[in-house]
Amino acid sequence: MPGRIYLDHASATPLDPRVREAMLPFISEEFGNPQSLHEAGMVAKNAVEEARAKVADLIHTSPEEIIFTSSGSEANNTALWGLARAQTGKGKHIILSAVEHFSVLHPARAKAEEGWEVTQVPVDRFARVDPSDVEQAMRKDTVLVSIQHANSEVGTIQPIAEIGRIARTKGVVFHTDAVTAAGTIPVDVQTLNADALSLAGSMFYRLKGAAALYLRRGIRIRPLITGGIQEEGRRAGTEDVPGIVGLGKASELAQAELEGRNAGIRPLRDRLEKLLTESIDHLRVNGHPTERLPGYLSVCVEYVEGETILLTLSAQGIHAASGSACTSRALKESHVLAAMGLPPEVAQGSLLFSFGKDSTEVDVQRVASALPPIVARLRAMSPLYRR
Amino acid sequence: MPGRIYLDHASATPLDPRVREAMLPFISEEFGNPQSLHEAGMVAKNAVEEARAKVADLIHTSPEEIIFTSSGSEANNTALWGLARAQTGKGKHIILSAVEHFSVLHPARAKAEEGWEVTQVPVDRFARVDPSDVEQAMRKDTVLVSIQHANSEVGTIQPIAEIGRIARTKGVVFHTDAVTAAGTIPVDVQTLNADALSLAGSMFYRLKGAAALYLRRGIRIRPLITGGIQEEGRRAGTEDVPGIVGLGKASELAQAELEGRNAGIRPLRDRLEKLLTESIDHLRVNGHPTERLPGYLSVCVEYVEGETILLTLSAQGIHAASGSACTSRALKESHVLAAMGLPPEVAQGSLLFSFGKDSTEVDVQRVASALPPIVARLRAMSPLYRR
Repeated sequence: MPGRIYLDHASATPLDPRVREAMLPFISEEFGNPQSLHEAGMVAKNAVEEARAKVADLIHTSPEEIIFTSSGSEANNTALWGLARAQTGKGKHIILSAVEHFSVLHPARAKAEEGWEVTQVPVDRFARVDPSDVEQAMRKDTVLVSIQHANSEVGTIQPIAEIGRIARTKGVVFHTDAVTAAGTIPVDVQTLNADALSLAGSMFYRLKGAAALYLRRGIRIRPLITGGIQEEGRRAGTEDVPGIVGLGKASELAQAELEGRNAGIRPLRDRLEKLLTESIDHLRVNGHPTERLPGYLSVCVEYVEGETILLTLSAQGIHAASGSACTSRALKESHVLAAMGLPPEVAQGSLLFSFGKDSTEVDVQRVASALPPIVARLRAMSPLYRR
Repeated sequence: MPGRIYLDHASATPLDPRVREAMLPFISEEFGNPQSLHEAGMVAKNAVEEARAKVADLIHTSPEEIIFTSSGSEANNTALWGLARAQTGKGKHIILSAVEHFSVLHPARAKAEEGWEVTQVPVDRFARVDPSDVEQAMRKDTVLVSIQHANSEVGTIQPIAEIGRIARTKGVVFHTDAVTAAGTIPVDVQTLNADALSLAGSMFYRLKGAAALYLRRGIRIRPLITGGIQEEGRRAGTEDVPGIVGLGKASELAQAELEGRNAGIRPLRDRLEKLLTESIDHLRVNGHPTERLPGYLSVCVEYVEGETILLTLSAQGIHAASGSACTSRALKESHVLAAMGLPPEVAQGSLLFSFGKDSTEVDVQRVASALPPIVARLRAMSPLYRR
């Protein structure tokens, strides 16, 4: 079997050797607890603070506005729960989009159980939110708006700066889940008018286990995990020093190389899109034609099941995904594709090919030649398919 | 300067090279997301499940009763918040001890803000809880008891099995924070009668960033971090695969070597205790004389400030701690020493020397000769001290 083809960067990116190098001291001799007052503690503390500055740089803010968390999901949960909780008394209305990640949707659902009201603004067939829908959803008792920066299933980029402007005009706290955007496209919290932003390095070559929440100075939050003075009392728990150092290094590299990476990634993605569209009929490309993450190619192959294709591809050494990795094992219908108006029988054929900085033309060719015969074979068994 | 003396294993333990070895593949080529359906995902998933079995073994339970978290603090927060929340309607009374870690105390305080009642049972001068106090604190509306297994500041081991028996007899859910106990002394959730138990590898030579919550089958919990199907829907967020693999390996090693490690650690600790008691007057040993973690030596040196001693020791290459690393930078009076009845002027002189499996007689000798002259010099400057 030829080498492995990895086009599932949306689920996990390889660890950049330079990130690994930066982390290694903290996976051996430098094991101090950043809260310890001795020299080993200081070494760890300094490493954490250096990483904090690099993460802050990536999104154009200052280090004291960065809170480290253990995952993008924790950052989102903290934002939803903690920002809402800090505003108790002002109102009980939250605005989200219909295509948020579950780590935003579920905490909001929990608030709803407590008597809060949650408005989910719709998206168009490209999974895009219309800022005027957010504006119209605003009420006197709205205290939080949370709209994702880019969608993790189809890659559509939302008009965040405009939504942020609306929220700021109304004096409403605005959070954006930028887990798939930060490190893959330019993200500037100032131009986005964001008060809070979740990011993780899962898309830009760091190790699992460290992520961050940006919180603009002056924005109040209640910590989700309490009982320690770490992160200025905003997130308890001994700092994951190696993970944080890795996130810092990955942020530094992403900032320096973002443009170059995307200059390589985008044509590969476009080429695979073209090849698949030409060779497979009844294939639908998901997400916005232009406002889409450069590495994302989500398609729906009608009359076949995405999971079956995935397993067949995997047996041929090709790694791709169907929808979000966070729910893939649940085999549920995608709420994102449903919100875009896709009927279940089309949505079930969804596939996500996500490119990374080390993707090559070989990857494109392998998928472009492997997929059509698999689809043809599966469709031949389907009573519904008529060419 | 001679080599570094590290007697701060309570704050952080070095990474065992064998744990590092086990983790390394997951910090390089094996970067898959355990939720991905392809082969890279399966490799990661299998590694996580193998680690889960090892952690389960360490505390004598089965893998499906283990939920991975990002820290002991997260495990404690999840237990306090999630176990209480899952029992809404049954009652609103929680019992804790006065010497719990802040990651137990603070979530309980948050429940109190929501109208719950929290009873803190006292401790004796050795920081020990009397089970009959727990029994007497029980009410009809008590839904949760959370008492730590061993204290993180002075090392006192609580009569957990007896407290667990009382809770079980009354049909009340019992959680124990075993972050400092698991991996350092034998912990068996069956004999402890625990329904939930927090553990972290911070004390037994794993990397930071992975911990676990044991939850007995049938005990209901509401997840603290929601929005993903990881950990059977009980904790969202992409799994920290390297951290989890490290925790698993560290658990396996701890289980195999626990007895041997403590056979080496205990005499060293006892010897330093004897040497310091003989050479420094007005020195008080904290914690229980026998029911204490084998590596713990907490002392109060009267008439001097612990922080000053620590910094002077650190300048001589000796790493120790004062109270808990989680709060050391806050320089607050220890709530543990206060609960033990120590007046603030004594408590401020607290020092914690904590031994690990690689500690040696050299460590003991270096501290035993360094500390008395430091104390003498500082006391000479104190107007309060009269020999």
